[in-house]
Amino acid sequence: METWFVLVSVVVFLLEINVSSAAIRVASGKPAVHEQRKTSNPEENTPEYWNNVAQAILQKAKAKKPNTNKAKNVILFLGDGMSLPTVTAARIYEGGESNLLSFEKFPYTAVSKTYCVDRQVSESSSTATAYLCGTKANWYTSGVTGAVKMNDCEASILPENQVSSIAAWSQLEGKWTGFVTTTRITHASPSALYAHAAHKDWESDADMVKRKQDPLRCPDIAKQLIDSEVGQNFHVILGCGRNKFLPKEVTDEEGKSGHRLDKMNLIDEWKTIKEKDMKKYEYVWNRDQLLQVDNDTDYLLGLFEDDLCKFHVDRDPNMDPTLEEMTKAAIRKLSKSPNGYFLFVEGGMIDQAHHRSEAGKALVETMEFSKAIRSAVDITNDKDTLIVVTADHAHTMSFGGYPKRGSNVLGLTDFSDVFPINESLPILSYANGPGYRPEINGTRHNYTADIMDFNYKYPGLFKTFSETHGGDDVLIYAKGPWSHLFEGVMEQNAIPHLMAYASCVGDKSTACKDDANIKGSGSSVSKSFAVILYFQLVLMIVYVKYFIVILY
Amino acid sequence: METWFVLVSVVVFLLEINVSSAAIRVASGKPAVHEQRKTSNPEENTPEYWNNVAQAILQKAKAKKPNTNKAKNVILFLGDGMSLPTVTAARIYEGGESNLLSFEKFPYTAVSKTYCVDRQVSESSSTATAYLCGTKANWYTSGVTGAVKMNDCEASILPENQVSSIAAWSQLEGKWTGFVTTTRITHASPSALYAHAAHKDWESDADMVKRKQDPLRCPDIAKQLIDSEVGQNFHVILGCGRNKFLPKEVTDEEGKSGHRLDKMNLIDEWKTIKEKDMKKYEYVWNRDQLLQVDNDTDYLLGLFEDDLCKFHVDRDPNMDPTLEEMTKAAIRKLSKSPNGYFLFVEGGMIDQAHHRSEAGKALVETMEFSKAIRSAVDITNDKDTLIVVTADHAHTMSFGGYPKRGSNVLGLTDFSDVFPINESLPILSYANGPGYRPEINGTRHNYTADIMDFNYKYPGLFKTFSETHGGDDVLIYAKGPWSHLFEGVMEQNAIPHLMAYASCVGDKSTACKDDANIKGSGSSVSKSFAVILYFQLVLMIVYVKYFIVILY
Repeated sequence: METWFVLVSVVVFLLEINVSSAAIRVASGKPAVHEQRKTSNPEENTPEYWNNVAQAILQKAKAKKPNTNKAKNVILFLGDGMSLPTVTAARIYEGGESNLLSFEKFPYTAVSKTYCVDRQVSESSSTATAYLCGTKANWYTSGVTGAVKMNDCEASILPENQVSSIAAWSQLEGKWTGFVTTTRITHASPSALYAHAAHKDWESDADMVKRKQDPLRCPDIAKQLIDSEVGQNFHVILGCGRNKFLPKEVTDEEGKSGHRLDKMNLIDEWKTIKEKDMKKYEYVWNRDQLLQVDNDTDYLLGLFEDDLCKFHVDRDPNMDPTLEEMTKAAIRKLSKSPNGYFLFVEGGMIDQAHHRSEAGKALVETMEFSKAIRSAVDITNDKDTLIVVTADHAHTMSFGGYPKRGSNVLGLTDFSDVFPINESLPILSYANGPGYRPEINGTRHNYTADIMDFNYKYPGLFKTFSETHGGDDVLIYAKGPWSHLFEGVMEQNAIPHLMAYASCVGDKSTACKDDANIKGSGSSVSKSFAVILYFQLVLMIVYVKYFIVILY
Repeated sequence: METWFVLVSVVVFLLEINVSSAAIRVASGKPAVHEQRKTSNPEENTPEYWNNVAQAILQKAKAKKPNTNKAKNVILFLGDGMSLPTVTAARIYEGGESNLLSFEKFPYTAVSKTYCVDRQVSESSSTATAYLCGTKANWYTSGVTGAVKMNDCEASILPENQVSSIAAWSQLEGKWTGFVTTTRITHASPSALYAHAAHKDWESDADMVKRKQDPLRCPDIAKQLIDSEVGQNFHVILGCGRNKFLPKEVTDEEGKSGHRLDKMNLIDEWKTIKEKDMKKYEYVWNRDQLLQVDNDTDYLLGLFEDDLCKFHVDRDPNMDPTLEEMTKAAIRKLSKSPNGYFLFVEGGMIDQAHHRSEAGKALVETMEFSKAIRSAVDITNDKDTLIVVTADHAHTMSFGGYPKRGSNVLGLTDFSDVFPINESLPILSYANGPGYRPEINGTRHNYTADIMDFNYKYPGLFKTFSETHGGDDVLIYAKGPWSHLFEGVMEQNAIPHLMAYASCVGDKSTACKDDANIKGSGSSVSKSFAVILYFQLVLMIVYVKYFIVILY
């Protein structure tokens, strides 16, 4: 068994070229197991090494210059549930302690306060309302103000209680818009782009009926996506969750049944609308189709699973696109817009993994998120594209013990200050979740048995069906035009206001309006120039006068 | 009982003017209990409220201008173990969710990677070597390079393995220096300012003998403070830990015995040296003395406890100064320096509280830390004083469940997705620690019994004598000259390099050296002016020539 394992490891290592896939091994029929890239650097024992590291950071910091271009394009990357401990652990898992994830190389960092109107610890729809619509909302509500409590259908349909997103503001300025997610396209985070709902789980009419709500009174989220003006204006929609769009009588391309009770096929309706509007559109449902989308296509809808997309470690590489592939396809399409674009990209399965207490998957999803961002950075440019990366809320995963350098963060620490039995601690664990294990003989588990498996549920102090979110702040990373505004500790709902400022959309303060004002009043430097030129002119006139006087 | 409680509450509320003391109530003879300031704001239901909040953040961000003055003074505030969840929870505990701690209002925020040379999760001495000396070190070592492993006395005394701190660099430029801590002045964090030790616990010769080390070969940390040039140059040393300085035969002012075996009274030695050098000095051991230090005094040593300072909730308000009072006294003294100063202030008991799993005390210590910073901001100015606030490492405390707005973060959440018994979860808990409780009948405890007590040990998943540190990154907050360099994700050891740059100390890159270079080469704006003036001059000469030609 062990020789086989070593052999496979060597072959896989030789075959795989990038860090993230080296960390994942999907053996057919066998559960994926995790392996961390090992790093060591004997130079770290010298002060010269650290002085050089620090001086390089200093030089980079000194070289930063505020970029005050108008942001033609804005891309917001959202790591759902990507807490700070998640980022640190994923960074180490990807490339060791001295590594940086792609977005950690961004020049500016800020802190986002995530509480919502009625809870200290928020969730994905109320936070999406904050970071997309600029207004904090109540727990579980999407695209509505704090006047709408969870489940209050009547309040949610009142226009005065609805708020619009930066996608809508961008559309009004003639920009193309789109979104990508690894969850369902009707899921909490993207829903705030286009929907107004008093409950994030009202994704289909069936979901509403199950919760004793009337979908004729308050339309479900899938229907809002297809029917609303904002939804119809999206040039790119990529993600999963076909079952929210298909009637239960219909099976999708992969043989899975729809969920809808109203007999509506909303995918067909999307096509019909595009047909009627004489738009060039394409609907794709697998990776090959996505990679071969026609360049002429202007409207792209891709749905790659009936429910949530698969975790990266579980996906079928031939059928399921990665987040990176979806992101690249989206940027390629939106780049056709003459007037720029707004794109929202969600790494949504980080959160799903944490809720299951499957920390290994959460780290891999974070790495995949980082890869998508790296690609976006590569195919856009700093001069006209603002890229903002953040999370909606934290999770309770903590990173403890005193593991040695190079330890696999998904494994055990050698720390042994534990009584009554010196059992090694897992480095990662949760405050609560399905990884709770009852005590047996004064100890709680034999961790070594299955901790290498990506399906392993990391231990939780309290037993809950689904591990809860965390209330600690999350970070914001930014690069490109006006990214220097993302500084200091801020309320989460400031994010779209800052992006709108940079890209000159929305009805609030924008860089273009400011610029118009500044051009009117003149900057101090141009004023000085004007004074000099004025005096030069006076001097010229005096000389010419003299010249004339003398001549005649 | 309840009427009494309400009455006392009202009286206390009326007497106390600041938020933090309102949260603490030390009833004589009774254990201190915690109470969080309640906040509510019905305006949060409107989008206008949130738009205004966000637009104010935008305006503040736009108004930020890089401050490129030379930092005459630098103050580094270090919250020992002040993880991001600690900051969030303390902020809410102090003033509700929309509150900001004093340092959270600083304009710039960065992320600090805290791993040390040999461990993913570091501790206070190796991290102090990073953020004070600019070099990462091995676990448990202080003021030495990675060439020195823990306990390696011989390696630690080799000059090539020793590194100096920004305090030493500042002294070389004629700046006054000092430090303040709520732990022992020989404790891990401050030790890297002046000592070189292969084990952070070698604080006295007795500590070394207990660990089978020879203090004649490698001097203990207290002795290094008194004997070393850097130690002797400190104008201010305020904190606790008298027993490391007094022989075991001697009792201190409060009747506690010293620990030293070498019969040396290092407090007397400090006085003797100052006497011999004809310095104006003062030694103080209680709050009154500290508040009445003579303005003429140039050298101040204050030791307020035999061991660690007391937790803020346990201190005797008449005898023990607060961190704020010590900080103000230190700034007042150091401000006498004509050439500026470097001050290090440690909120060291945050870490001590977390290790004990006493989260309530950790939050109060964080609030006290914030108060000290607020005072420092008030009595210094942004033009010449760089203030940097950071932590050395995280802890495993997480902030979970879905508590309602206004919940006391030290209490229970109403979240009940728990089985088999719907017990309320405490909002805060630890991955490990002395707060571990064995299961009884499928549940682990009745939290409500004593959770209001500051001595309550918050639950930990694993049983350890001392809760462990966390490996997640910590934040950096900065204001004042060159604070805009504190941006993005950086290695912890870059911190003193950036501070040294701003204040023109140390032998690496500094703003003063750069400034000299820049003045030589000329900026682009002044170049443009020069070109215009040149052409103007040429024009004048042409006119004058014409004038002369015509004249004759």
